[in-house]
Amino acid sequence: MISGSHVISSDRVEGTTVYNAGGDKLGTIDDLMIDKVSGQVRYAVMEFGGFLGMGTDRYPIPWSMLKYDTSKDGYVVPLDKTQIEAAPRYASDAVPSYDDSYRSTVDKYYGL
Amino acid sequence: MISGSHVISSDRVEGTTVYNAGGDKLGTIDDLMIDKVSGQVRYAVMEFGGFLGMGTDRYPIPWSMLKYDTSKDGYVVPLDKTQIEAAPRYASDAVPSYDDSYRSTVDKYYGL
Repeated sequence: MISGSHVISSDRVEGTTVYNAGGDKLGTIDDLMIDKVSGQVRYAVMEFGGFLGMGTDRYPIPWSMLKYDTSKDGYVVPLDKTQIEAAPRYASDAVPSYDDSYRSTVDKYYGL
Repeated sequence: MISGSHVISSDRVEGTTVYNAGGDKLGTIDDLMIDKVSGQVRYAVMEFGGFLGMGTDRYPIPWSMLKYDTSKDGYVVPLDKTQIEAAPRYASDAVPSYDDSYRSTVDKYYGL
């Protein structure tokens, strides 16, 4: 773990729990989607549902929506379970191309 | 793998080979260091030396120095082995805090 600094390692982000504003666990971060040229993290991909990694879906969440909460040791997003359940998702073996069209769909869902 | 888009997953970046301009293998990317607030990837941490993960050192390389080469399926950095051998490094079990002082040391070594 990196502490006392402004950076965090991708190894540390992956596996971190995501909570809603009410403190309910929504899922865990499975992967990060990074702009190839700029190196900007665009989406944290949240794993939600399923059991022991089987049958789970992946939910791309715009990075700007995640706020780290040190008291929870996890990220908080201003979404409730109903919003997540209707959110853009894909199976772990069917990752979309993340082209402009897909990214626009995701961003619009979250009002960005 | 994400193709035909402008984003790449952290899972895909980790494990990718890093070459010098002459095409020699320097190491592989082990981790990414990300600005907590902005989500900007600041450093790719390259693994170099050792055998089967034992005794290797970690070298933070500023992200802006890495260029992806599709023909090599890896990143190319404008450094030779001598420059890497003298570069800032740490043991995998002694990760520094990446505070302003450490980051300044790394950036200055690479002329940034």
